Amino acid sequence: DEAVFFPDIPKISFNSEAGANETLVFKTYNPKEVVLGKTMEEWLRFSVCFWHTFRGTGADPFGFPTLHRPWDDGSDSIENAKRRMRAAFEFFSKLGVKYWAFHDRDIAPEGSNLEVSNKNLDTLVELAEQLQQKTGVHLLWATCNLFAHPRYMNGASTNPDAHVFAYAAAQVKKGLEVALRLGAENFVFWGGREGYHTLLNTNIKKELDNMAAFFRLVVAYKKKIGFNGTLLIEPKPKEPTKHQYDYDAMTVIAFLKTYGLEHEFKLNIEPNHTTLAGHCHEHDVAMAAAFGMLGSIDSNTGSPDLGWDTDQFPMDVKNTTAIMKIVIEQGGLQPGGLNFDCKVRRESTELADMFIAHIGAMDAFARGLKCAARIVDEGVLSMQVLERYSSYSIDIGARVESEETSLEELEKYVLKNGEPERRSGRQEHFESIINHYV
Amino acid sequence: DEAVFFPDIPKISFNSEAGANETLVFKTYNPKEVVLGKTMEEWLRFSVCFWHTFRGTGADPFGFPTLHRPWDDGSDSIENAKRRMRAAFEFFSKLGVKYWAFHDRDIAPEGSNLEVSNKNLDTLVELAEQLQQKTGVHLLWATCNLFAHPRYMNGASTNPDAHVFAYAAAQVKKGLEVALRLGAENFVFWGGREGYHTLLNTNIKKELDNMAAFFRLVVAYKKKIGFNGTLLIEPKPKEPTKHQYDYDAMTVIAFLKTYGLEHEFKLNIEPNHTTLAGHCHEHDVAMAAAFGMLGSIDSNTGSPDLGWDTDQFPMDVKNTTAIMKIVIEQGGLQPGGLNFDCKVRRESTELADMFIAHIGAMDAFARGLKCAARIVDEGVLSMQVLERYSSYSIDIGARVESEETSLEELEKYVLKNGEPERRSGRQEHFESIINHYV
Amino acid sequence: DEAVFFPDIPKISFNSEAGANETLVFKTYNPKEVVLGKTMEEWLRFSVCFWHTFRGTGADPFGFPTLHRPWDDGSDSIENAKRRMRAAFEFFSKLGVKYWAFHDRDIAPEGSNLEVSNKNLDTLVELAEQLQQKTGVHLLWATCNLFAHPRYMNGASTNPDAHVFAYAAAQVKKGLEVALRLGAENFVFWGGREGYHTLLNTNIKKELDNMAAFFRLVVAYKKKIGFNGTLLIEPKPKEPTKHQYDYDAMTVIAFLKTYGLEHEFKLNIEPNHTTLAGHCHEHDVAMAAAFGMLGSIDSNTGSPDLGWDTDQFPMDVKNTTAIMKIVIEQGGLQPGGLNFDCKVRRESTELADMFIAHIGAMDAFARGLKCAARIVDEGVLSMQVLERYSSYSIDIGARVESEETSLEELEKYVLKNGEPERRSGRQEHFESIINHYV
Amino acid sequence: DEAVFFPDIPKISFNSEAGANETLVFKTYNPKEVVLGKTMEEWLRFSVCFWHTFRGTGADPFGFPTLHRPWDDGSDSIENAKRRMRAAFEFFSKLGVKYWAFHDRDIAPEGSNLEVSNKNLDTLVELAEQLQQKTGVHLLWATCNLFAHPRYMNGASTNPDAHVFAYAAAQVKKGLEVALRLGAENFVFWGGREGYHTLLNTNIKKELDNMAAFFRLVVAYKKKIGFNGTLLIEPKPKEPTKHQYDYDAMTVIAFLKTYGLEHEFKLNIEPNHTTLAGHCHEHDVAMAAAFGMLGSIDSNTGSPDLGWDTDQFPMDVKNTTAIMKIVIEQGGLQPGGLNFDCKVRRESTELADMFIAHIGAMDAFARGLKCAARIVDEGVLSMQVLERYSSYSIDIGARVESEETSLEELEKYVLKNGEPERRSGRQEHFESIINHYV
Repeated sequence: DEAVFFPDIPKISFNSEAGANETLVFKTYNPKEVVLGKTMEEWLRFSVCFWHTFRGTGADPFGFPTLHRPWDDGSDSIENAKRRMRAAFEFFSKLGVKYWAFHDRDIAPEGSNLEVSNKNLDTLVELAEQLQQKTGVHLLWATCNLFAHPRYMNGASTNPDAHVFAYAAAQVKKGLEVALRLGAENFVFWGGREGYHTLLNTNIKKELDNMAAFFRLVVAYKKKIGFNGTLLIEPKPKEPTKHQYDYDAMTVIAFLKTYGLEHEFKLNIEPNHTTLAGHCHEHDVAMAAAFGMLGSIDSNTGSPDLGWDTDQFPMDVKNTTAIMKIVIEQGGLQPGGLNFDCKVRRESTELADMFIAHIGAMDAFARGLKCAARIVDEGVLSMQVLERYSSYSIDIGARVESEETSLEELEKYVLKNGEPERRSGRQEHFESIINHYV
Repeated sequence: DEAVFFPDIPKISFNSEAGANETLVFKTYNPKEVVLGKTMEEWLRFSVCFWHTFRGTGADPFGFPTLHRPWDDGSDSIENAKRRMRAAFEFFSKLGVKYWAFHDRDIAPEGSNLEVSNKNLDTLVELAEQLQQKTGVHLLWATCNLFAHPRYMNGASTNPDAHVFAYAAAQVKKGLEVALRLGAENFVFWGGREGYHTLLNTNIKKELDNMAAFFRLVVAYKKKIGFNGTLLIEPKPKEPTKHQYDYDAMTVIAFLKTYGLEHEFKLNIEPNHTTLAGHCHEHDVAMAAAFGMLGSIDSNTGSPDLGWDTDQFPMDVKNTTAIMKIVIEQGGLQPGGLNFDCKVRRESTELADMFIAHIGAMDAFARGLKCAARIVDEGVLSMQVLERYSSYSIDIGARVESEETSLEELEKYVLKNGEPERRSGRQEHFESIINHYV
Repeated sequence: DEAVFFPDIPKISFNSEAGANETLVFKTYNPKEVVLGKTMEEWLRFSVCFWHTFRGTGADPFGFPTLHRPWDDGSDSIENAKRRMRAAFEFFSKLGVKYWAFHDRDIAPEGSNLEVSNKNLDTLVELAEQLQQKTGVHLLWATCNLFAHPRYMNGASTNPDAHVFAYAAAQVKKGLEVALRLGAENFVFWGGREGYHTLLNTNIKKELDNMAAFFRLVVAYKKKIGFNGTLLIEPKPKEPTKHQYDYDAMTVIAFLKTYGLEHEFKLNIEPNHTTLAGHCHEHDVAMAAAFGMLGSIDSNTGSPDLGWDTDQFPMDVKNTTAIMKIVIEQGGLQPGGLNFDCKVRRESTELADMFIAHIGAMDAFARGLKCAARIVDEGVLSMQVLERYSSYSIDIGARVESEETSLEELEKYVLKNGEPERRSGRQEHFESIINHYV
Repeated sequence: DEAVFFPDIPKISFNSEAGANETLVFKTYNPKEVVLGKTMEEWLRFSVCFWHTFRGTGADPFGFPTLHRPWDDGSDSIENAKRRMRAAFEFFSKLGVKYWAFHDRDIAPEGSNLEVSNKNLDTLVELAEQLQQKTGVHLLWATCNLFAHPRYMNGASTNPDAHVFAYAAAQVKKGLEVALRLGAENFVFWGGREGYHTLLNTNIKKELDNMAAFFRLVVAYKKKIGFNGTLLIEPKPKEPTKHQYDYDAMTVIAFLKTYGLEHEFKLNIEPNHTTLAGHCHEHDVAMAAAFGMLGSIDSNTGSPDLGWDTDQFPMDVKNTTAIMKIVIEQGGLQPGGLNFDCKVRRESTELADMFIAHIGAMDAFARGLKCAARIVDEGVLSMQVLERYSSYSIDIGARVESEETSLEELEKYVLKNGEPERRSGRQEHFESIINHYV
């Protein structure tokens, strides 16, 4: 109980003057520093994910585990699970992060049947409750792992076998109860096995209908038990499945609107998933925000030259600036946050690497926040965007916006006014403005 | 008027016994041959596109035109436009294709102002009307070119300048009138400039609102003038714009549902656009069909190793089989069709290449039709798919489908019935079945 | 010893009349059928890979094992390893495949140190020797697994730690001895960890020098012990490493020529790796063949819409035709072969799926062989290609080829002869010819 | 002659205090400022490319020209060509760039035959000579456009028609003479049409042999006339051709070594081409440098989510830092430079955009230079890399490097010394160090 899992790592401090080689210190992230009227920690709401950081082994499709943690004996015992959780809360505290996130099966071993699994989960949730209370760390979101167990290989809510659908439903029922008990601020669905490997054996429509039916059951039960957290769907285009139904932000919005679920769910956007869908890093964050659907962010990055999810720690200040600008413009992410769905490289085998990676990412986001705050505050950029669309505030443009016009009227306008003026988009000018701040 | 533009090319005939080197003959496509109760030409509804086949020059971003047609003097004169159109109808007739498709600016030169442009268009539409009547060739669809002229460089309906919006509206007004006059069975919108090059200068939400406003104006005018063709939106993820709002089938469906337009539009799917969006060749055709939104198909293909739209002639029978299987299962494409939005390679400089390319693609689709018909007719595949989902017809599965169940009931089911059986997805078996037919 | 591992599966037979749903039978592959003067089995030299087919578990980065084989108790015991090997030889025999391939660590468990590992290997090699003799199955190639063990996480021969280099060297020494004993016809190197994850911590040049030093040691030892098999390098651009030095065929050839190793090695080409490098399916097979470096083929396929190695069974006859055409044109692959570096989908959980997958692929290659043979035999295609380059046989072209000319002479030729004629590349014509055969 | 083409743009000045909206001023690039013992302008050797900046029209595959320059009447007249060139030199001077680069056909119109073309070229070269002398601007490199004219549609030196080969040779002969006359420091070959669109009609080996023959003729003539500039090959994987033989740095090195040309050529690396080949931005720069083959850089960038060459101005300081670190470590690029093979977006239609784009990129490179200089100077990073490989300086590692060891000795070493220690690759630590500087 009083074990110390990271004896060589102190509470991480802030020192803006630290040297190049000092990577176990915050150089920008200063939680109580005020930016645009809120503290950094209010804006940034960082969360550590339990799966990568405490269950990741460094195994990859071509290699065995490389990450051996001294507290983890590799067993599925409850004792091992408890040690892992204590190590995690020590990590959260030393890092100074106020939120965490987990899948049900991350924190407690799956048993020989659902009853045992639920009992295991209860045991660990009790410990989590104590540790949350003791440390002041909150649960950003909980989720159910509906993809790793072989029963889900052909899908969970979209499985061709109704028995599997039932299993997923039962698992989520328990997950919602756990989320309620631990005060989770959100509950996430990532449909890693909801999709197809080959269209040849798949009835897409039936599967999507079933997925919608599943979500309706979830909404009903959530309301019944009084869980008030936001339900979030996390898009990902592919991997592990060849095609996943929750391809990207707009596809999920299409699904929600098709099935009348758009008021019950928001999106949890992961930039590495966005880039796998062929978009730029911040695209889905921007699209979700534009439609009022941005709930939370899995703040990571990928390598644009790789075709799979690398879940790297975000280290690029230009990217973090772009994201924080959107977050600031929508007034913050709460009750969502910035969850580090990131893993240390499998070659980063030291305990210190766990800290270094998170610190580097937190500093990158703190720098992004400061850059974005200046951009928003000075308004140079936003004024120029506003000006670009100003023709819609007057004259024929205003009639378009108020939907009072017609093709006939617009034709008359053109016959009278002729060719529009050419107006430069000025992309390089806008890019140079960003470089002024970043 | 009596000019012959392809003096060396006879009407293309059918000869299933032709040799390897004979590529100016149909070996499978036999228009009146009956397949599953309809003739091949009823199923396949081939259309030749005017832009690539009669306006394509072979120019690419690194090279000048290579395709010099004897009837085309390169000028923007009305006479030249008329010669081109006569050559086109000779081509359609010799090829034996019953449909064509065009953009307004393909068939008639843009003038110094809208009035002149419209007048030019009227002149050529008159000729088209005569030639349609004379040859029995119908107009599969018309569309407006809202992307090539510099005025549209920052978008048409999503342009930050309301004047450009008006221009696009005026152009579409005329386009609808022309479509009506020529008996177009559909009218297509491809938003090649509706999107962004950089988020920095863009208000996504305002642009999408304006795009919806535009489509509402179109619907109103279409109804007013009594044009009964189907309105189609053609998704494309990117190129020429960095990000296009009509990314893929599901994104367009999201847009339509968001703005309440889903009953007024269907989709025109182009497989080369689908693969650029990161999906497999037939994905968007399948998705659109599953949601009852498949209106028409731009039957082409790309090279999966290239990141741009190559608009190649579809020559792969596996692909055409996959597409025709979906088409057969939805009972045909009418009033849509299979429009060859394809261009001969810029190195394919002979007139004969124009025919060879279309013939090869038509034969590939005819083979695909025959394979798909056998697959559908024998029902081996569909029975196995049906069986895969059979658990939803009984017991707890049936209660899921009728939405009578709850998470609590499903949990009880699992606690009682335990772990689901593992059932193989049998992908390789399904693939082998396809190879039996193709 | 006399155990039967696939009691429900008979020796796979040939029946060209089998129905669509019959996928446990060859419909085209008929080993003794003669094609262009050789039997199918002489041309096709199929090999089953031990790793995927007998060590694959169906685990993926997001999911646990799904493939449970009745003979495999999941342990690392020698007894388990022996059972696996007996099952494998039963599989080879029932399938009628004459070759297999393995990594050292596939067939025998790694021990607590190299001595134990080598002893384990010897034990299993002895069994392999007996089973090879009993069944007439030969070893197409052996290889060492220098990527899965954590010691290799930063590379084997390119590891920054010389101790790891030494370990890899010791492992390969044993591997060569085993290859010699089992009569391996080739020995393969796949450098899955030879590359970098970040340039920041990497000295590329030093690593490539070391890789070359490693290969020189291998060549020396190979000669010393009298192993006459071909040494093969297998290119792959990325995955698991961000960048692998053996990116594609031409990159490996560059490496070999840079270090004077081009006469000691050939290439083992895997089409799924080729497509991950951004090329078309058969590109690296064609490039390697053009440079006389095509040694063997890992005959699999990927999904062009996925950015990772899916190692699917090749089922596309157009692809197999393209590959077999190159193989026929170079007179066969011996001592190389067509190794199925393929895995059943993790959802294909039945034992029968193992057979169905291989049978489907073997039939696809047999069809490809027959198509390619007709293409080569009739010579329609090759004559047209020959004709395309005929200008190099005469006049100024002949002087170019014999390198007797100069820029001055060529300028004079142009000043005298003017502009070259435009000659169509006729791509669609060539594609139509292929469709005549496939 | 005394015309002023950019009347509203002054000579661009340096002002590190300029505001966000001021984008017509250098904030970091200060040509005479000394960094690591050289001035910025010595390190950076910026070059403006004539083709994009003075011949680019903004046309794209879906759109007509958008960029209308007041001095350009759109004609092919010599007078127009002269005005363009004068405008260009005014641009170079106002921007303060000391180098330019061009293709033969950029600066002078192609005539009705080679004689006329050469005469046109001479006329413009004479003007260029005068303007170079007057302004002090030098020619970084010249090149021949062997890809835009239809005659090259099937390749230049790899064309199946020897007549085209001859034409390309004649054109390069003149190009070399022009380069000599204008004091070009390099001469570049970009093989945009050297490759294949389909393997079906292509003899790869013959084409590569011919390409090598071509380069040998070039080397001979270069020596004959005493041109001492460096010959450079610029790799690009694809576009406009489906596959280009000069795929990436390593592929070109393979080609050069195969044909014994590696001492006569270096590489001109373009990062946008590198990313199209599936590598990270600086990969080919790093590979070329590691092999002593880095001659010059086409300093641009692409959009990682787009599959074609966007030739954007480099604005990312992390990228420019990575590149300048390599440049500093090899002691500079001379006689190569940083050529801006970049184009303003087609929507950036104002003359000022031409300046803003170049200024933004020059500042990004100046910031990259300063960051890289600090990284190199402080040595924190390089010391840690050195330390990573230190085991090769002693003991068994030293014997590996000196190639004195054998597999037997290495096996003995492992049997005695056992398992290597696990050493973290520390990627996140290295990334954090970079973030300290950038």
